[in-house]
Amino acid sequence: MLAAARTAFAERGYDGASIRAIATAAGVDPALVHHYFGTKDRLFLAAVQAPADPDEFLPEVLAVPPDQRGAAVVGMVLRVWDGPTRPAVLALVRSAVNHEWSARLLREFVLSRIVRRVVGSVDVPVEEREARGALVASQVVGLVMARYVFRMEPLASAPPPWVVAAIGPTVQRYLTGDVELPHPR
Amino acid sequence: MLAAARTAFAERGYDGASIRAIATAAGVDPALVHHYFGTKDRLFLAAVQAPADPDEFLPEVLAVPPDQRGAAVVGMVLRVWDGPTRPAVLALVRSAVNHEWSARLLREFVLSRIVRRVVGSVDVPVEEREARGALVASQVVGLVMARYVFRMEPLASAPPPWVVAAIGPTVQRYLTGDVELPHPR
Repeated sequence: MLAAARTAFAERGYDGASIRAIATAAGVDPALVHHYFGTKDRLFLAAVQAPADPDEFLPEVLAVPPDQRGAAVVGMVLRVWDGPTRPAVLALVRSAVNHEWSARLLREFVLSRIVRRVVGSVDVPVEEREARGALVASQVVGLVMARYVFRMEPLASAPPPWVVAAIGPTVQRYLTGDVELPHPR
Repeated sequence: MLAAARTAFAERGYDGASIRAIATAAGVDPALVHHYFGTKDRLFLAAVQAPADPDEFLPEVLAVPPDQRGAAVVGMVLRVWDGPTRPAVLALVRSAVNHEWSARLLREFVLSRIVRRVVGSVDVPVEEREARGALVASQVVGLVMARYVFRMEPLASAPPPWVVAAIGPTVQRYLTGDVELPHPR
């Protein structure tokens, strides 16, 4: 079931993959998938082997005022990575860099389960959301790589409040600020 | 010689590694290292398996006015990655994510051969340079990961001028702008 789910989510994305189609591909009844995983969201978390559930850390971010949401995003990233789940998240990033299917799965997870919910929570035109989300992701992924993978000083050992003060404004600008955006494809 | 050079650069950094020590570790005469590689810089490029020589693309970046250098950095990154060397650069990133020694070598290469020269070219206090450099690297690495590794749209297919317009201001702020910086360690 998990193998079928990974293929489906990687090929068709979160929204395009259905529990019914995943069950068919795995040769089981959809009821069995529901029995084991409950919702599509939980099946997706299991397929990605997500070490943290966005439903646990996102509500806090979405609760801060829109003009402070950039800082809240950076703070959240640091809490997830500075916590006990770091080895598991790092393994996820390694796998994504090594395998095309894994990269697609992680991209879909980060974009549809985290970034889109953050961007969807601020007051910007719908047609700008995808571009703003990709820009937010570019800075967040870069922060993670520089601090935890490449361990570039002083970013690697800097206390979270400094990182939030330095990088929060970038994420805020990408979320709600003045950014030249491409035409919709 | 290359194996000894990789170990030396990864452990002691570019400045700390000497051709003499590398030659000793490899059991050869320093003159032989000079004969094969010329300068320490070229030996380092060979050790990292750098697909592009910073001396070829950096002068152009350093020639633009300081207040446009953020845009120039982003433009340079896109030219290197959108060119024929992309597979080789991608292989370098993959290796760095998989191997600790490779991550150290790539970090040292990016910081000492590229980032420090860019940051050293703008008028900011010396004690701010390391932090500004790490911040620049965080956005540049993130752009590379989002556009070329994770292929997040619309960033993955966006024309270079749009990427420069969207991300250039971030790099510019990290280089010369108002950023809260940590105390020197």
